[in-house]
Amino acid sequence: MIAPNTKAAGSQFSYLTHLECSSCQTVFDPQRIQTYCPDCQAPLVAYYDLEKARAEVDRDYISHQHGGMWRWHAVLPVQSPEHVITLGEGDTPLLHLPRLGAQKGFSNLLIKDESLNPTGSFKARGLAAAISRAHELGVDKVVIPTAGNAGGAMAAYASRGGMQSYIFMPRDTPVANIKESRIAGATVILIQGLISEAAGMAGEKARNEGWFDVSTFKEPYRAEGKKVMGYEIAEAMNWTLPDVILYPTGGGTGLVGIWKAIQEMAAMGWLETKSYPRMVAVQAEGCAPVVRAVDNNMPFCDFFVGAKTHASGLRVPKSFADQLILQTIKESNGTAVGVSEEAITAAQLELASVEGLFVAPEGAATLAGLEILKQRGWVSADERVLLLNTGTGLKYLEQLPD
Amino acid sequence: MIAPNTKAAGSQFSYLTHLECSSCQTVFDPQRIQTYCPDCQAPLVAYYDLEKARAEVDRDYISHQHGGMWRWHAVLPVQSPEHVITLGEGDTPLLHLPRLGAQKGFSNLLIKDESLNPTGSFKARGLAAAISRAHELGVDKVVIPTAGNAGGAMAAYASRGGMQSYIFMPRDTPVANIKESRIAGATVILIQGLISEAAGMAGEKARNEGWFDVSTFKEPYRAEGKKVMGYEIAEAMNWTLPDVILYPTGGGTGLVGIWKAIQEMAAMGWLETKSYPRMVAVQAEGCAPVVRAVDNNMPFCDFFVGAKTHASGLRVPKSFADQLILQTIKESNGTAVGVSEEAITAAQLELASVEGLFVAPEGAATLAGLEILKQRGWVSADERVLLLNTGTGLKYLEQLPD
Repeated sequence: MIAPNTKAAGSQFSYLTHLECSSCQTVFDPQRIQTYCPDCQAPLVAYYDLEKARAEVDRDYISHQHGGMWRWHAVLPVQSPEHVITLGEGDTPLLHLPRLGAQKGFSNLLIKDESLNPTGSFKARGLAAAISRAHELGVDKVVIPTAGNAGGAMAAYASRGGMQSYIFMPRDTPVANIKESRIAGATVILIQGLISEAAGMAGEKARNEGWFDVSTFKEPYRAEGKKVMGYEIAEAMNWTLPDVILYPTGGGTGLVGIWKAIQEMAAMGWLETKSYPRMVAVQAEGCAPVVRAVDNNMPFCDFFVGAKTHASGLRVPKSFADQLILQTIKESNGTAVGVSEEAITAAQLELASVEGLFVAPEGAATLAGLEILKQRGWVSADERVLLLNTGTGLKYLEQLPD
Repeated sequence: MIAPNTKAAGSQFSYLTHLECSSCQTVFDPQRIQTYCPDCQAPLVAYYDLEKARAEVDRDYISHQHGGMWRWHAVLPVQSPEHVITLGEGDTPLLHLPRLGAQKGFSNLLIKDESLNPTGSFKARGLAAAISRAHELGVDKVVIPTAGNAGGAMAAYASRGGMQSYIFMPRDTPVANIKESRIAGATVILIQGLISEAAGMAGEKARNEGWFDVSTFKEPYRAEGKKVMGYEIAEAMNWTLPDVILYPTGGGTGLVGIWKAIQEMAAMGWLETKSYPRMVAVQAEGCAPVVRAVDNNMPFCDFFVGAKTHASGLRVPKSFADQLILQTIKESNGTAVGVSEEAITAAQLELASVEGLFVAPEGAATLAGLEILKQRGWVSADERVLLLNTGTGLKYLEQLPD
């Protein structure tokens, strides 16, 4: 960990200033435990003193450090290094896919492989940030509803911080997610229903028992951890950006987070480009609330009735941050695309057999989505296209043939 | 990737000079495909021009780069950057375990977590090095016998390099290893028997079909990839070293490799300490050929009849590098210790529930081994003790209760 006592690292460990409701812009105190805006039922967004950070923090200094996600502590919410709870998350590889790219007709196909995180998924980033900050503010019991990987990640960081954790998950969540949560010491409650029902139960327990609810966007800091993917992408591309980012979208924290990181980097003068990526939300056809909203030019999502997909992380009938997701897509001139179960499975096999990457079904969905966008002429062969693989395929083994 | 054109990075991409039989010291040409010494049936060891590297390569320059294992290309066998086949291996975290340490009576307990590698294990390092170098020398078909994680790693790197791969593994290898290998495009042959039988079949195929056999230590470069763990450990500890390293020992590549890295760093003047770690081979009681040899002060291992342990990577009745393993233990004033199946399972639960680390049974064995060494008074409370976790617990889910 870098001591915040040099000019290049900044004069403060964190430049966090305040929280704001994403809907009514009411300001909330970040030095207290916060959830979401009670008036708007909308997420709170973290703001930093980027002008001061621009003057004091050197992106190239950070680039010459090790330490994963926490190299970027200046733009993360934790106030003091001793409250960082880490398992080594972040600094995942950004890989070129030359052989698969050639097969699919793209000359610059890239993947960011988030399976190389603790607990095998990108959920580690968000929960490292949220659990660290909650711990710093005195929380000792946390609860989460999850459709997949978030439970295992929360359980791991809670244990690492000596906190108690409770997880509500649908009974048909992959067995790996259940077992990894239990071995990490979490109390796991399996429920009949989807993540939306799990969320209701978690919220009730939070109110009645005083547990802190770290549901997606119902606290402000998971998105802050996830946004670091955006910093790492820019850094790996010499402070330029892809033309298109395809992101598998359930709760949407990463999609919104990466876009936020781009705005922050621009405000600090860190980018060497003014060309920003078009952000694409990829969903399963069986659970595509964002696709429907984009297709119908709506500013919010309807609850997707009868949600069904084997990509468990995409089985989110309505994100709490639906408006932020749609705003990101709109601002970035992006789009949303739904893919079939068969296309996901085929893409998973292609990534593994052609490039050696055994990705999660959610990650595979981005390749399937790219093929559809290519057919539509929405993306061209020489654009720099980045697929975001959110996790390891190892957690979905029961879905593969013996 | 760093261009090798600056003084700090060195004037050569690799300083590899020659290969030597570890037994008779006969020299072999590294610019041709090599296997092992046909006279001694012993592994070949890679040597580098460390005097030249000492003059030209700056350890601190390397430390300010990103790029995982290949930051250390000067002391790796690949001759040209375009032949590096990578999935982002290396740069795994070295974590303090303050809470578990306190429970166990150690003030400086550390773990290096190799589960954050592509394919979820340390095998990625060895096979990235071996497959890259084989590819550079024109190989297009590779074969391996494996007791667990090596198959999935080989399959992934072979696919990434556009090569064909064949894997012989015991029928009772964890299903994750079988599935990850198959999805990566490998031809998997399940056999009745142990890795020793699988090795025989792989060797026969190699001879008859001309496939290149990347069995542990039957080619010289897997150990080179694995040794980078040693470089990373020293780097993370400001160029000092732990007092004790506990290493789960099946084939022993990493144990031997880390010790080799320490000698190389010393020769290049990179270390700030003259105090080297005592290297401990941890094995399962049910397959403990190294423990038996150490206990009986033998210079080689006997074949361990009836090998049986649920830590599949430790189910190696006799390593091809048994003499190098025993030599490492002797030179380092180390030892070997066998642990029970129950102790492995208990340690796995403790690491997960106390520190959030869901480690492989092989990695958990090191914690079980530490407790025995503490009871024996072999290690003291204030020593810097490093556990080496070789892989993710996610590949062994069928061994956990529902």
